[in-house]
Amino acid sequence: MVEASWRYVLEWMQMPLEGHLHGIRKIIYSGKTKFQQVDIVDSYSFGKCLFLDGKLQSSEYDEWIYHESLVHPAMVTHPNPRNVVIIGGGEGATAREVLRYPTVERVVMVDIDGELVELCRSYMPEWNMGVFDDPRFELVISEGRSFIEESREVFDVAILDLTDPIPGTPSVFLYTKEFYELIKRKLSSNGVMVTQATSLRYSFETFAKIRNAVAAAFPLARPYTAPVVSFLSFCGFVIGSMGRDPLSLSSEDINARLKTLRGELQFYSECTHRFLFQLPRKFREALDAIKEVPTDSNPAFIPL
Amino acid sequence: MVEASWRYVLEWMQMPLEGHLHGIRKIIYSGKTKFQQVDIVDSYSFGKCLFLDGKLQSSEYDEWIYHESLVHPAMVTHPNPRNVVIIGGGEGATAREVLRYPTVERVVMVDIDGELVELCRSYMPEWNMGVFDDPRFELVISEGRSFIEESREVFDVAILDLTDPIPGTPSVFLYTKEFYELIKRKLSSNGVMVTQATSLRYSFETFAKIRNAVAAAFPLARPYTAPVVSFLSFCGFVIGSMGRDPLSLSSEDINARLKTLRGELQFYSECTHRFLFQLPRKFREALDAIKEVPTDSNPAFIPL
Amino acid sequence: MVEASWRYVLEWMQMPLEGHLHGIRKIIYSGKTKFQQVDIVDSYSFGKCLFLDGKLQSSEYDEWIYHESLVHPAMVTHPNPRNVVIIGGGEGATAREVLRYPTVERVVMVDIDGELVELCRSYMPEWNMGVFDDPRFELVISEGRSFIEESREVFDVAILDLTDPIPGTPSVFLYTKEFYELIKRKLSSNGVMVTQATSLRYSFETFAKIRNAVAAAFPLARPYTAPVVSFLSFCGFVIGSMGRDPLSLSSEDINARLKTLRGELQFYSECTHRFLFQLPRKFREALDAIKEVPTDSNPAFIPL
Amino acid sequence: MVEASWRYVLEWMQMPLEGHLHGIRKIIYSGKTKFQQVDIVDSYSFGKCLFLDGKLQSSEYDEWIYHESLVHPAMVTHPNPRNVVIIGGGEGATAREVLRYPTVERVVMVDIDGELVELCRSYMPEWNMGVFDDPRFELVISEGRSFIEESREVFDVAILDLTDPIPGTPSVFLYTKEFYELIKRKLSSNGVMVTQATSLRYSFETFAKIRNAVAAAFPLARPYTAPVVSFLSFCGFVIGSMGRDPLSLSSEDINARLKTLRGELQFYSECTHRFLFQLPRKFREALDAIKEVPTDSNPAFIPL
Repeated sequence: MVEASWRYVLEWMQMPLEGHLHGIRKIIYSGKTKFQQVDIVDSYSFGKCLFLDGKLQSSEYDEWIYHESLVHPAMVTHPNPRNVVIIGGGEGATAREVLRYPTVERVVMVDIDGELVELCRSYMPEWNMGVFDDPRFELVISEGRSFIEESREVFDVAILDLTDPIPGTPSVFLYTKEFYELIKRKLSSNGVMVTQATSLRYSFETFAKIRNAVAAAFPLARPYTAPVVSFLSFCGFVIGSMGRDPLSLSSEDINARLKTLRGELQFYSECTHRFLFQLPRKFREALDAIKEVPTDSNPAFIPL
Repeated sequence: MVEASWRYVLEWMQMPLEGHLHGIRKIIYSGKTKFQQVDIVDSYSFGKCLFLDGKLQSSEYDEWIYHESLVHPAMVTHPNPRNVVIIGGGEGATAREVLRYPTVERVVMVDIDGELVELCRSYMPEWNMGVFDDPRFELVISEGRSFIEESREVFDVAILDLTDPIPGTPSVFLYTKEFYELIKRKLSSNGVMVTQATSLRYSFETFAKIRNAVAAAFPLARPYTAPVVSFLSFCGFVIGSMGRDPLSLSSEDINARLKTLRGELQFYSECTHRFLFQLPRKFREALDAIKEVPTDSNPAFIPL
Repeated sequence: MVEASWRYVLEWMQMPLEGHLHGIRKIIYSGKTKFQQVDIVDSYSFGKCLFLDGKLQSSEYDEWIYHESLVHPAMVTHPNPRNVVIIGGGEGATAREVLRYPTVERVVMVDIDGELVELCRSYMPEWNMGVFDDPRFELVISEGRSFIEESREVFDVAILDLTDPIPGTPSVFLYTKEFYELIKRKLSSNGVMVTQATSLRYSFETFAKIRNAVAAAFPLARPYTAPVVSFLSFCGFVIGSMGRDPLSLSSEDINARLKTLRGELQFYSECTHRFLFQLPRKFREALDAIKEVPTDSNPAFIPL
Repeated sequence: MVEASWRYVLEWMQMPLEGHLHGIRKIIYSGKTKFQQVDIVDSYSFGKCLFLDGKLQSSEYDEWIYHESLVHPAMVTHPNPRNVVIIGGGEGATAREVLRYPTVERVVMVDIDGELVELCRSYMPEWNMGVFDDPRFELVISEGRSFIEESREVFDVAILDLTDPIPGTPSVFLYTKEFYELIKRKLSSNGVMVTQATSLRYSFETFAKIRNAVAAAFPLARPYTAPVVSFLSFCGFVIGSMGRDPLSLSSEDINARLKTLRGELQFYSECTHRFLFQLPRKFREALDAIKEVPTDSNPAFIPL
């Protein structure tokens, strides 16, 4: 053993039934914003990591798997995305992926927690890669739902990069049928929406319900998953589309789009695209067995 | 919280830097064989799990991802596998996947630990699904390398489903150039070999070295990885082939072969096949930077 | 490091705020009785240990500190104990200490959990040292309170060696004013009662309330504490006396009594006696600030 | 449960066999000095705590048990202490106890780690209670052994409040016969020395060896122990005396001395004095069975 460790984040995946013990090489930042406890640490497990209220949000080791999987399936599903809105996304990595598209003229990122965004900007430059200085990028510090309600813009793609719907947090009302309908009204005719949809392992029911809410609001809803080992699970996502179906994109379509991108992707490819949407039959059947649709009066939560 | 827990397996991924705390619902079996400590438990994390010397080997939750990824890429690379040898594979799940192929006439599974095989047979029927009773299946309790040395059979496919090369364990000499050359001599003309090759995250160098040893012995070596979240990592694998290249199989070829299989696969598909062999550029480059070839006199180990 | 470990009891002292991680050398017994989960393990921390529902009850390392501190202050306070009742005390070690007194003619031990007593008898002989075969010893499997209610015996000393008053468990009603009054009615004129009274560190309020309940029922109540490091705390006790005051025993009195005992004590002595009853002023004041008296309709609990 | 926690110090008592998981309410300071990693945290277990290199040194909950037990037995053994030297003692609490004696004219505290002393002064005022401003107090930042070698002073009492003899740390040579002989030469005729002597539970052999080294250097050596639950053990100490025997002090002597002290003690008393020196026979016998005397060429270590 090369180094001793005794400072840990013990991340409860399900308290007290399963935990992930991350040895800490260095505490980079630890403090509270108005909204949440923020710990940015250099861990022995996944390198630099962001924890919010004790839950790992994103790690140097595989944030690119998460962020590429969140952004590109939706972006390539839209034929010509110019105006993109991101709700959440404090680390700046979601914007980083969006700004790779030369068609994009404007990205507005709406995060509720301005202090967190500043911390990410200062302490996590590997994530945002300078996007805060891109002239196409605008940061708005605001609660996401009211921003959407009040916005007079039309967006081509909306990306919901949110914390999980933990009871009592503002995220809860960003996973309901009503919210997805609100988004739909602000999208252009080929508009596409994507949301992170919690964990296949810890909150499968929540994933299914989010799928149902998107399906209730959009003509087309497609669930998919990506292996994010720092989350100890496949992560769920759901696309809602007013136009094209991500399942009907041809390999040529996808490859042609990817060729136009600035920089090099690490994970997402035409082959990955097809892999992400392929759910084992047992999961597909389990998904279809859950019928509940989360609404503002009966929202979905992750189990605690 | 629905249930209390206080009995845990604390699986050290890297002691004491990273651990995975598995709450235990029920201890199904706990004891020592001549070779290793065996714990079969019902965990809150991954359901029924097999731990050998404190390391998770296989979990009800995702053993099928591991076993399908180990077996099928090699099996479909061989045009017509009839005679298959498995080294290790105590749970019986590797044999289960092999026996899905109607072309297979004989599977011999060679495990060093007869007590372990009996325990798996008794306590883990979900893994072996009755393969021990299949007339095509033969179990040999023996050290794998000496079995191969002494065998007069010719095999079409050899599958190495081994514990990691931990210093001081017999597995160490099942990951060397000399061993792979020995296997090659027992393979038929289109022969294919595959080995599990440890973890992309915890032992990337070991993965690279195993790739190098296979490449030194076989005309063609192809590394690939699969996401096994219960291992908290992508798991590495390496195929050595004397004939076809797994990368040049057409979608039609793979689909045609999969149609002949008995039962339904959960994870592996034509699309998965291509995904598994797709390594991010940064990993490919890191792999290529490691030149060492493990030999009997200088074997590879996993870091402890 | 000489040995590896990965099986643990993680004993939550206060979940999830403080835990004690006990590496397990060997699981001696693990199972459920009608009343509780029983784990008897050989730990790296304290040698052989008994856990009930995940809480350490008694360890080879320092059970003698606990049991000598529970039994002897009460026994020497009574001038001539002949008939002794123990409620709880499944391990047999409380009876072991009582039977050292040559004046004792009869010990009746009343434990609710006959299976547990059998397990202790089989697997923990170091605790009971053969007391189950002593002709003066009688075992009754029964709920303690109803035993006392129905008993027609008169006892000189009553020793309450109980699990903590955890909400929902039968122990709760063995820590109330009404129960102590019931006991008092079954004691002889110089009768003495002692109860374990939870932890000075984790449940100081509960300790204070138990003191108050004893004080409400008995002419004299004396709290004291003993350092039981395997409990990570000083353990609380309360004596209720109808006759002598443990604080007024002279050194000569105590030494004279101890000389008559069979076997050798390890911890308790005349000097220890005085030490146990000496509480730091800040704890005495904190104790006196708590006025609540637990009753059957408003019992005391330990915090969870 | 009132509060969540996910940041922990996992204090390895014996890695990986026993650990103590301290939930952290607040990180007060975390950083490295030239000599050690310093973590001052507000824990759920013991309130404010000082950890050096991951080992708890002192906690708000029971530092007074440790410091009163370290200081007063030696101080009352000397009939008239005026000049006192402390080696180590960075928190200032050892000096605090010494300065209670009105006979004391000068206390010099010699700590190797000036940064640590400053941190304690800033962040742990409850420990030092203003001693750094007492005109009788002098702080010297220096390695303790060379200070003693070069000092031309004569001391009445020397108090060694050191970190444990961990291989490779400067403390190792502060637990040898040669060092104790050096101290003896700087003491006045009734001079008394006391050293902390590690843990009765984790390093009993080390405790015995330190006793032997003191006995080899001083006319009289007396081991004793005190229950420090935050150390999960009784803590060992050894007095070396050139004059009076702490065991022969009368109750009247001790009480008379304690009456002269400024402020009120919480733990130490005449009764406590006698209790501390009372070792169970099995420990006394085990102590006497260990004959090794640590020297500069063959020092004692704590097991890791």
